[in-house]
Amino acid sequence: MNGLIKYLSNKIDVSFAVKEYILSISLQKKTQKGDILISQGNKIKFIYFVEDGCLRSYSLDKDGKEHTLQFAIKNWWISDFTAINNNILSELSVECVQEANIIQISLDDFYQALKRFPELDKIHKKNLENRISSLERRILDQLMLTALQRYEEFKKKYSDIEPLIPNYCIASYLGMAKESLSRIRIKNSELT
Amino acid sequence: MNGLIKYLSNKIDVSFAVKEYILSISLQKKTQKGDILISQGNKIKFIYFVEDGCLRSYSLDKDGKEHTLQFAIKNWWISDFTAINNNILSELSVECVQEANIIQISLDDFYQALKRFPELDKIHKKNLENRISSLERRILDQLMLTALQRYEEFKKKYSDIEPLIPNYCIASYLGMAKESLSRIRIKNSELT
Repeated sequence: MNGLIKYLSNKIDVSFAVKEYILSISLQKKTQKGDILISQGNKIKFIYFVEDGCLRSYSLDKDGKEHTLQFAIKNWWISDFTAINNNILSELSVECVQEANIIQISLDDFYQALKRFPELDKIHKKNLENRISSLERRILDQLMLTALQRYEEFKKKYSDIEPLIPNYCIASYLGMAKESLSRIRIKNSELT
Repeated sequence: MNGLIKYLSNKIDVSFAVKEYILSISLQKKTQKGDILISQGNKIKFIYFVEDGCLRSYSLDKDGKEHTLQFAIKNWWISDFTAINNNILSELSVECVQEANIIQISLDDFYQALKRFPELDKIHKKNLENRISSLERRILDQLMLTALQRYEEFKKKYSDIEPLIPNYCIASYLGMAKESLSRIRIKNSELT
């Protein structure tokens, strides 16, 4: 079954029209670790819904260092929404962190769907609000918590896949040196 | 003139019905430096639109240290939207940083307005998208930039009011020790 329809069914009664439309715009894909779906500096054509596995978005600084903005796991959306919103080239890359099943939808189809079906627009609006909550929480955590506490929060949020995510990706999300994170993770695995 | 209607007029043709409704739900207030509009741990009743001046939202950690989530200047909204979204008590306080003219709207009235007037809902949705862009930019800045560079970005964004904001407020927004920021600001004022 298309994971996006399953996801929608947990939120609304999915009408036949919505189901047909979603199926007509969904392209199911399997991606491998390291696959790049969006490359920084390019025009964005698609957004992605994660059925399972893990993707991430990140930005390269002028020294070529990666900084992770988001991890996306089951039932999450990922793209460069800020660039889409501002109609500019992507400032992020989106990469497959662990083998994933995803649904690719073109931008046009996605925004058409929101226009055509108010129930989908309502879910989208709720997702925007949830995204704001999540980003605000992350900023406050960054200001209030120690590196170790931030890592503990990360483990809670991404419990299923945390052990599978490479060290440098998590470090670049938490704003820590990868050596420090490595020490914390080793200590942590000895305790559990 | 009600600053909120002026703000809306720059985005849409404000109909008579919208204007009348906005006027009926707006309570214009003058606030003084240090006034607390929302106190952490309480039920949230209002959202605030800033006509001029400056407010901020912040959270206290367990040691009583303040961490600033947001500054709101002319034409910005402020409240604890995450708490509103999750229907919980406020996790933030909202304080007047510099004498301000604000418009207070009750939560019920605000969300009724969005339901009643699709043009207002559209502006609100755009504001949600812009808020996401701004939070994502802040997270990437926090990961990518030095403290000095983050302060430079802050000065650009809040150029009109930056000199008027107390040191500890900006430091608690940028995640710096206030002594470090103080040194940067003194050095900066000597150079300009």
